[in-house]
Amino acid sequence: MSSQDLESLDVEGIRQQFPILQREFDGQQVVYLDNAATTQTPDPVVDAMSDYYRQYNANVHRGIHHLSQEASIAYEEAHDRVAEFINADGREEVIFTKNTTESENLLAYSWGLNELEPGDEIVLTEMEHHASLVTWQQIGKRTGADVKYIRIDDSGRLDMDHARDLITDDTEIVSAVHVSNTLGTVNPVGELTDLAHEHGALSFIDGAQAVPNRPVDVEEIGADFYAFSGHKMAGPTGIGVLYGKQELLEDMEPYLYGGGMIRKVTFEESTWGELPWKFEPGTPPIAEAVGLHAAVDWLEDIGMDRIRAHEQELAAYAYDRLDAEGDVEIYGPEAGSDRGGLVSFNLEGVHAHDLTSILNDHTVAVRAGDHCTQPLHDKLGVPASTRASFYVYNTREEVDKLVAALDDARQLFA
Amino acid sequence: MSSQDLESLDVEGIRQQFPILQREFDGQQVVYLDNAATTQTPDPVVDAMSDYYRQYNANVHRGIHHLSQEASIAYEEAHDRVAEFINADGREEVIFTKNTTESENLLAYSWGLNELEPGDEIVLTEMEHHASLVTWQQIGKRTGADVKYIRIDDSGRLDMDHARDLITDDTEIVSAVHVSNTLGTVNPVGELTDLAHEHGALSFIDGAQAVPNRPVDVEEIGADFYAFSGHKMAGPTGIGVLYGKQELLEDMEPYLYGGGMIRKVTFEESTWGELPWKFEPGTPPIAEAVGLHAAVDWLEDIGMDRIRAHEQELAAYAYDRLDAEGDVEIYGPEAGSDRGGLVSFNLEGVHAHDLTSILNDHTVAVRAGDHCTQPLHDKLGVPASTRASFYVYNTREEVDKLVAALDDARQLFA
Repeated sequence: MSSQDLESLDVEGIRQQFPILQREFDGQQVVYLDNAATTQTPDPVVDAMSDYYRQYNANVHRGIHHLSQEASIAYEEAHDRVAEFINADGREEVIFTKNTTESENLLAYSWGLNELEPGDEIVLTEMEHHASLVTWQQIGKRTGADVKYIRIDDSGRLDMDHARDLITDDTEIVSAVHVSNTLGTVNPVGELTDLAHEHGALSFIDGAQAVPNRPVDVEEIGADFYAFSGHKMAGPTGIGVLYGKQELLEDMEPYLYGGGMIRKVTFEESTWGELPWKFEPGTPPIAEAVGLHAAVDWLEDIGMDRIRAHEQELAAYAYDRLDAEGDVEIYGPEAGSDRGGLVSFNLEGVHAHDLTSILNDHTVAVRAGDHCTQPLHDKLGVPASTRASFYVYNTREEVDKLVAALDDARQLFA
Repeated sequence: MSSQDLESLDVEGIRQQFPILQREFDGQQVVYLDNAATTQTPDPVVDAMSDYYRQYNANVHRGIHHLSQEASIAYEEAHDRVAEFINADGREEVIFTKNTTESENLLAYSWGLNELEPGDEIVLTEMEHHASLVTWQQIGKRTGADVKYIRIDDSGRLDMDHARDLITDDTEIVSAVHVSNTLGTVNPVGELTDLAHEHGALSFIDGAQAVPNRPVDVEEIGADFYAFSGHKMAGPTGIGVLYGKQELLEDMEPYLYGGGMIRKVTFEESTWGELPWKFEPGTPPIAEAVGLHAAVDWLEDIGMDRIRAHEQELAAYAYDRLDAEGDVEIYGPEAGSDRGGLVSFNLEGVHAHDLTSILNDHTVAVRAGDHCTQPLHDKLGVPASTRASFYVYNTREEVDKLVAALDDARQLFA
């Protein structure tokens, strides 16, 4: 894609599809820079779900009547569409969960709890989200497996020499975040996967901050498992995805039991159905799957390359502007490198929560806290940071409003 | 409530709020009698969710900015509203899951996997849904606890003498369905709970087919845990509820790990946050909670007594009409008894799937299969049944269409 193609992104046209971006508080239009927490949902996605409820709502699993047939096809096609989007081999490799967190827990229970034993090692990174870090930590405690963490260097990148030391024949799984939700670091997940495979280990990639913002090809990465959420990619709440290689998923026991995932049940025992239904017991998130399908269509209509370029440009602009202030500490790799569309920072002498509150007085919506990476914040030596995160509808003018509002904080806390 | 009040149900007015009920296939308006699988969603519920996405979509957990405050309040108030609806003590006792199945698994993992051991007994009924039956069976296998089943008698009711024999001091939990999704039986869940408590055991009630259709008061029942789903009560897919007594939930370990449910995390260990968030890791079903809140408002605006009366009346009418045909075998308690709003049956000489397909030619939507109660169907001696299930928008005329269509099946299979 040429740079001219990239420049042709019609941000104003895109913004028209998000009524929420027109909202005002105290006469000021909202500046929504909390996209790493959740993205906004364009009209075509909301309409797709409303249309589902008003026209073909029914339970799935191939009921015989017309409505159930329509709902079943829509639900199955949503799997196909997501598979195509991340270049999985087919719907058997795409499991719908409730969110990325459940996707990680599904793997930890279905594979980890059954396969791990004392002496085994789980290798994470120091920048893992709690969804990954706490889950493997607790499954490690249950099974006796040890958890080790690949160090990050001063630039906020993984120390790959340390990774090569840590990943050994004792390693059973390497679990790494694709794009850090705090640092913005884009990790070499293909290289980590190769290292895991060289030692007979599996790889799991947390792609919650990657899939919404850049082209992701699970085959190219080589990952055994990969997870992400609908609500961070212009889709609905209530749905997440676990991608897994079919042969691995076939071998795994389900962790949730119920209807729709069984083959045969007696009072004494049960056997399991086909993929992906084996891992989707009970009534699944049908309307949400319809919404996720619409979100993927919407994103690809814009183009994932364009979305990545737009966010990188905004993140670099925000980094440079904040850096130029002189009293802002920014975490993660320098501007201009391959970076997720977010910037976490602290303003000297002002607590992140206070700063975020002052920004909110200017209707600039950012997030303060540890962003579900407490251990990483401990390592950075701060209890919290303020995070501005961008999406395809954000503009340089919105970044300017963020930077301009810092002065208020300085004056209040001077 | 007087019978006059009950008769005042404005079914035609209610139907106006469901565009899907106007759909036609081959020129015939849909007759939707698959409500035990999923109910339809009225406009106010769909609109509440669309309004969420278009006006105040944000991640929750008390973010500082305006939108997150609005979303957090809405999410918390949904807990409060559901608590009030079932007479729980407060939001701490209402956990949002993805569906009833997950609610049951949550309990089985968080309590069962940690507390059960060889020699312990889990007492179910023979009419349990797979969500309950398979889950306890598998947790039993993992922990060494035995699973026992309270027999049903020829009328499709629980044999309470057998229940009194089975529930002993070895019993750790009694898990019973409130209203059978196959037989329509309304079980004496208060009495079962009392029996459990007399022996120091807990009680779990699967209320997926009860909460949508009748007033449910968890305090009156005395249940320790109680579960149901949004999509079966005029609400959205993607959300379920686990009610639990606060002191019991406080003592339970979470089973899913991630963000939003922790107090403190280090690389080595983690501690858990407050109820109900401890059991709701990751981004929860926010839009779905808004939809569920709207569904509860919608149902209570009609009145749960009225809804129960309407469904009982329709179920009795359907039972009588089918029974009068002479060649229809109906399962479960006789007409006129306290019965859920559904009738499962078989037409002599016609497989349930064939019958359901023929009914669909008349645009009558019912469900054929084992309804996730395979062991019960084995006991009934049939591989499948056809189930017609009613909701507040159904009419006698729709039942008439169902019965009239049976003739086609007789002629085809004569």
